[in-house]
Amino acid sequence: MLRELVEFLRIPSVSTLPAHDADCRRAAEWVAAELRRLGCREVAFLASDVHPVVWGVGPDVPGAPTLLIYGHYDVQPPDPLGEWVTPPFEPTVRDGKLFARGSADDKGQVFCLLRAIAAAGRPPVNLRFLIEGEEEYGSRVLFDLLRREPERTRADAVLIADMAYVAPRWPAVYTALRGLCYAEISVRTAQSDLHSGEFGGAAPNAHEELVRLLGRLKRPDGKINIPGLYAAVKRPSRAELAAWRKLPFREADFLKQRVRAKRLTGLKGHSVLERLWALPTFEIHGIMGGFTSDGAKTVIPAAATAKVSLRLVPNQKLKTVERQLAAAVKRLAPKYVSASVKFMHGADPAQVRITHPAFRLLDQAFREVVGRGTVPVRAGGSIPVVPALGRSGAPVILTGIGLPDDRLHAPNEKLDLKQLWDGINVFRRFYELLGRGNADARS
Amino acid sequence: MLRELVEFLRIPSVSTLPAHDADCRRAAEWVAAELRRLGCREVAFLASDVHPVVWGVGPDVPGAPTLLIYGHYDVQPPDPLGEWVTPPFEPTVRDGKLFARGSADDKGQVFCLLRAIAAAGRPPVNLRFLIEGEEEYGSRVLFDLLRREPERTRADAVLIADMAYVAPRWPAVYTALRGLCYAEISVRTAQSDLHSGEFGGAAPNAHEELVRLLGRLKRPDGKINIPGLYAAVKRPSRAELAAWRKLPFREADFLKQRVRAKRLTGLKGHSVLERLWALPTFEIHGIMGGFTSDGAKTVIPAAATAKVSLRLVPNQKLKTVERQLAAAVKRLAPKYVSASVKFMHGADPAQVRITHPAFRLLDQAFREVVGRGTVPVRAGGSIPVVPALGRSGAPVILTGIGLPDDRLHAPNEKLDLKQLWDGINVFRRFYELLGRGNADARS
Repeated sequence: MLRELVEFLRIPSVSTLPAHDADCRRAAEWVAAELRRLGCREVAFLASDVHPVVWGVGPDVPGAPTLLIYGHYDVQPPDPLGEWVTPPFEPTVRDGKLFARGSADDKGQVFCLLRAIAAAGRPPVNLRFLIEGEEEYGSRVLFDLLRREPERTRADAVLIADMAYVAPRWPAVYTALRGLCYAEISVRTAQSDLHSGEFGGAAPNAHEELVRLLGRLKRPDGKINIPGLYAAVKRPSRAELAAWRKLPFREADFLKQRVRAKRLTGLKGHSVLERLWALPTFEIHGIMGGFTSDGAKTVIPAAATAKVSLRLVPNQKLKTVERQLAAAVKRLAPKYVSASVKFMHGADPAQVRITHPAFRLLDQAFREVVGRGTVPVRAGGSIPVVPALGRSGAPVILTGIGLPDDRLHAPNEKLDLKQLWDGINVFRRFYELLGRGNADARS
Repeated sequence: MLRELVEFLRIPSVSTLPAHDADCRRAAEWVAAELRRLGCREVAFLASDVHPVVWGVGPDVPGAPTLLIYGHYDVQPPDPLGEWVTPPFEPTVRDGKLFARGSADDKGQVFCLLRAIAAAGRPPVNLRFLIEGEEEYGSRVLFDLLRREPERTRADAVLIADMAYVAPRWPAVYTALRGLCYAEISVRTAQSDLHSGEFGGAAPNAHEELVRLLGRLKRPDGKINIPGLYAAVKRPSRAELAAWRKLPFREADFLKQRVRAKRLTGLKGHSVLERLWALPTFEIHGIMGGFTSDGAKTVIPAAATAKVSLRLVPNQKLKTVERQLAAAVKRLAPKYVSASVKFMHGADPAQVRITHPAFRLLDQAFREVVGRGTVPVRAGGSIPVVPALGRSGAPVILTGIGLPDDRLHAPNEKLDLKQLWDGINVFRRFYELLGRGNADARS
């Protein structure tokens, strides 16, 4: 079974890099072949030739509830390559952990959900599958598809395993995800690059202007300096904040073992979990322009661009934040600088009520297999398409078999194999419980 | 003749990029072949196999003065490539101008000096040549050579044509050059890159810290915020400032035709020429780290590096400025950020007294050929090795045939062919005047 997962992980399906388009297509074909093996009576590539959404319809089980399984076969770029102990697309087991880009986010978890079906024999549920290839790039293709064909999400429940336990041996179910606003901020100060000997002292420098602008967009105390940004932010309830304080989360361990920095940063007066789960962020991802090759070039850059993103929280709206960021950039740039913002992709934040009976069944499955039920938490990350998947009214069950130290999006991403084997048993049991004709589980 | 220059310019001898080492060697060989054609009794590659200094000794002319000709065969990197109308290493004539990287800085001018020798027949001067291949990268090889073998600079005068007229039809002689301090400022905030969903709001971001640090190193009003930096700066004399006001320099034209920006920037209370020639600068050239490929990656970078440089003016010292920059970076970085400065290359500023009789002869040559003598000015750029070339006491004649709009170090660098043909006649005449046994011209 491990060999088959390794084969899936070997495919460098980096959706955000056009050079990997063919690899994304190969990963989609791998998923389609799996679905056929599971007896799906319909398997189709939808909406895109490059990053197709893999659609599957399992065997018909009259009278049984319908479960829609969502996942993604695309992965984040692997750089910086130099920091991987073993190459990102040569999956390697060390100390019971499988190291590879996509091992936890999300190929390994998709694999877990699918193998749990095989393990259950043919589980007594009507299965639907939407396994997409653009989750790391904004899910545009799937968004468009669901707008045109909302009936694809008609189900009694939606299951997503793209998350992690909140701590080892503490399975979790997620009540909220942050949204995302990914943008490029560009400045131009002159028509072309200039020689710093000839012009230095009198000519504007695009990098200097960009750096000053970015420095003003977020204050040293962590406050994002975008007018109106915090207006829609809904603070978690007292009960929720109190529950978070009881979680097995120690700030010192988080700093030392996971962030591995000298200090945590962020907005004062809020706990770490609140900063991670319930407050917006502004991050600079990279800065382009000027001279960045080896060696030295004494150029005054005429243009510079920063890749940045904000994470959004309930009840912020992507469209509003885009307007606010564009206005802030315009306001902060001096008159002699042409500044612009290009929006790359994004997602509204998501909130999920966990009152539906299916959540009780998942809790039971974890309790039986792992020895502890699911604790409700939030996530700092984003799965752009979650709100759209829940639009038909079906509960979206956000859970997963990852661990907090899986290093998603970073070098040396990994999946603990024990989590994988446990996970297969958990979801096998969940499918069985759901299909046992539990009337509550049907809408 | 043009065809031969084109052949020289075709060689992409970018000294700062290791990928072009073989090209640098080819350019050195081109120069050596030229020197042999001029009858040099000694031609040698000195000090480096990769970027050799080409040394030449012309025919012996007993009793005649000795002139050392300095130039460089290396060029700046050509990026951004997309902004060149024709490719940088496919020299093209348009409208009487030869467009190519190195056409003005400095291959075209080296060509001019050498062809003027041929044009003079065998001029009655003892010629020495030091044509180096690391001028754009700090001249380290030549520095070391001159420290070991200072006798190479023994001459009655040193001639450098790496400069420009101060305006069309206004030949110039240069009394000062700015120095250079090229460095990489690096910050590290964590052991490896982190996922902005998982960690955003609580983890430090290397780009954010670098951007804030760079923003503090120079204030919006142009003042460089490095303690002690301005202490050694010697203001130009009243007479010099008054002379600059009489030069054919119009701020509005400089902005519109050359800088091509919306506004000039820089330290208030100083004229543009003072800012360009007599004040230090701080420029950001590029920023590395994080994610800068196509597409989107939601990473919190753990490390970031900026390429920066300062131009230095009399009487600043490179070593002192390096210490000051390192101290300022250390002081400005928060405690939880590891910040460091790596010094890449540099040069002390240079000052030249123009009282030696050879300057009069150059003035006369320009007057005869171009119709106007040389006006004394300064330059904002740097030729790192100038102080070392003058250490034996010989006057360093800094002049050239470029024009202010040649776009050195930038896309679409060019040389006006009229300037080249005039220049050949000017230097031919200068060699003749110098060699006419003018006793004053000998030390």
